Amino acid sequence: MDTTSPTFVALDLLGVFAFALNGALTAIRVARLDIVGVVTLGMLTALGGGMVRDILLDALPPTTFRDWRYLTVAAAGGLVAFVAGLSLDRLARPILVLDAAGLSLFAVSGALKGLDLGVGFGQAVILGAITAVGGGTLRDVLIREVPSVLTSGLYAIPALVGALLLVAGDRAGLGDLPSATVGAVVCFVIRLIGVRFDVQAPRPPGDAREA
Amino acid sequence: MDTTSPTFVALDLLGVFAFALNGALTAIRVARLDIVGVVTLGMLTALGGGMVRDILLDALPPTTFRDWRYLTVAAAGGLVAFVAGLSLDRLARPILVLDAAGLSLFAVSGALKGLDLGVGFGQAVILGAITAVGGGTLRDVLIREVPSVLTSGLYAIPALVGALLLVAGDRAGLGDLPSATVGAVVCFVIRLIGVRFDVQAPRPPGDAREA
Amino acid sequence: MDTTSPTFVALDLLGVFAFALNGALTAIRVARLDIVGVVTLGMLTALGGGMVRDILLDALPPTTFRDWRYLTVAAAGGLVAFVAGLSLDRLARPILVLDAAGLSLFAVSGALKGLDLGVGFGQAVILGAITAVGGGTLRDVLIREVPSVLTSGLYAIPALVGALLLVAGDRAGLGDLPSATVGAVVCFVIRLIGVRFDVQAPRPPGDAREA
Repeated sequence: MDTTSPTFVALDLLGVFAFALNGALTAIRVARLDIVGVVTLGMLTALGGGMVRDILLDALPPTTFRDWRYLTVAAAGGLVAFVAGLSLDRLARPILVLDAAGLSLFAVSGALKGLDLGVGFGQAVILGAITAVGGGTLRDVLIREVPSVLTSGLYAIPALVGALLLVAGDRAGLGDLPSATVGAVVCFVIRLIGVRFDVQAPRPPGDAREA
Repeated sequence: MDTTSPTFVALDLLGVFAFALNGALTAIRVARLDIVGVVTLGMLTALGGGMVRDILLDALPPTTFRDWRYLTVAAAGGLVAFVAGLSLDRLARPILVLDAAGLSLFAVSGALKGLDLGVGFGQAVILGAITAVGGGTLRDVLIREVPSVLTSGLYAIPALVGALLLVAGDRAGLGDLPSATVGAVVCFVIRLIGVRFDVQAPRPPGDAREA
Repeated sequence: MDTTSPTFVALDLLGVFAFALNGALTAIRVARLDIVGVVTLGMLTALGGGMVRDILLDALPPTTFRDWRYLTVAAAGGLVAFVAGLSLDRLARPILVLDAAGLSLFAVSGALKGLDLGVGFGQAVILGAITAVGGGTLRDVLIREVPSVLTSGLYAIPALVGALLLVAGDRAGLGDLPSATVGAVVCFVIRLIGVRFDVQAPRPPGDAREA
């Protein structure tokens, strides 16, 4: 799959917008922020995962930093969240669906970039997951939340499954586009099932705090 | 502007000392730390922003890490804060002025380094702001504060304006030294106005927690 | 010292396992996590310090990320902690000893890698300490604890001493293996004395919160 094709970039930018919007809204709900804080956290949510991936891959400066469209779309998502603020709560469900689409896309595109740059099987899967959940984790650290990816529901697991399917398909010689499509769709469906039925990943035995 | 000239390096080291001192004092006020913690957080405040800038620019190892003077001056600032401790509170205002000077200098020098290494207009402005506020943000994360740059007063905004003026002046062919001087002075003045009159950046609409 | 010799790698992997186990157990005690969170935090504790070191040294992708054995051993340590959970509390003391061994090994191996890649005296010492305490610091940030290395007991200091002895021995021409052995043993002994007698590093004067 050509990661510079117009279709791919358009999909990627859609994911960036969704992550920036949802990331900024999450930040507004939790912390008392000004305009700089809201836009910064939206941009960090959208671009942080790809930046960590590119640092680990030594693909610097990060793509999301070199291409002005990424910075612009991410800033736009954060600004929309700032202006509309909590009145977007009515759109919480569509925004979650958009966020799940971003998660799926980032998981497969991150794994694909790892394979392109020659890392191993396991590392490519981990890079896909880092791309998908890294930005939200950085945001949660800045607003003093325990990152939701470590504690709640199905968020990291669909990203890992999606990246795994992409890598497995690539190894099996299925071609990038079919592998990526299968990986992204499966990630998207698992994530939506998790949202709909509030599925939780297993917790350690004897965790008395389990509600 | 020659960023290796003695004048530039002396100014830069003054900014490093101011950031390390103020950063360590902020950490002492908020968290219960031992000597390792105080000195580490002072050094991180002073050098962290430049390190993140150099990672994103692929200018590794970071300058602040390669040149022993940066490490020494930063450690000295942290040690002074540790020894003098809260008795420095009498000097809170001069230290804030020194910190504003560091902010101004880091904003323009960070943007300048970005331009030197060939990044675009917007990226250079962001790199200037990251250099200026990155270290304090890392410190706040380690002591479990929501980074003050995201929530309070004019801190990121003067850094962005200073970096923007430097980049705009450079594009307009005004030369590095005049552009950097104008950028730094404007950043410094806005920051001091913010400190003096407790100006706040806009908050999201409907933020009921607004005091 | 040949950092690729089987003996060295076996010792290094033992340290990785100890850090992943202890790191994941610490995380379980403090935060409410699912399986993804426990394993991720164990891996981050074990591999995070080396990753930060390799980023600062521009030795990317990080060794701990390139070699599948590091990822596998770290994941295994996290999984053991998840499955056994708080029933491992009976083994708290042996695990602390193992963790002190990991600390010692990472401090000298981190400093050694810095010297190999040509950084200066002070930087190599700092890199050793970062390798030893960086992973635990990242874990503490994610679970919203003020990093224990900044506040409590002898943890950073033995790492700094061990790295300093390695660097000093290397400069004095003692050879890598004797220097590393002395550095690691001294670090290990100081750390165990700190654990046994609950020694604390000095705090700032006038710290009224001192218990």
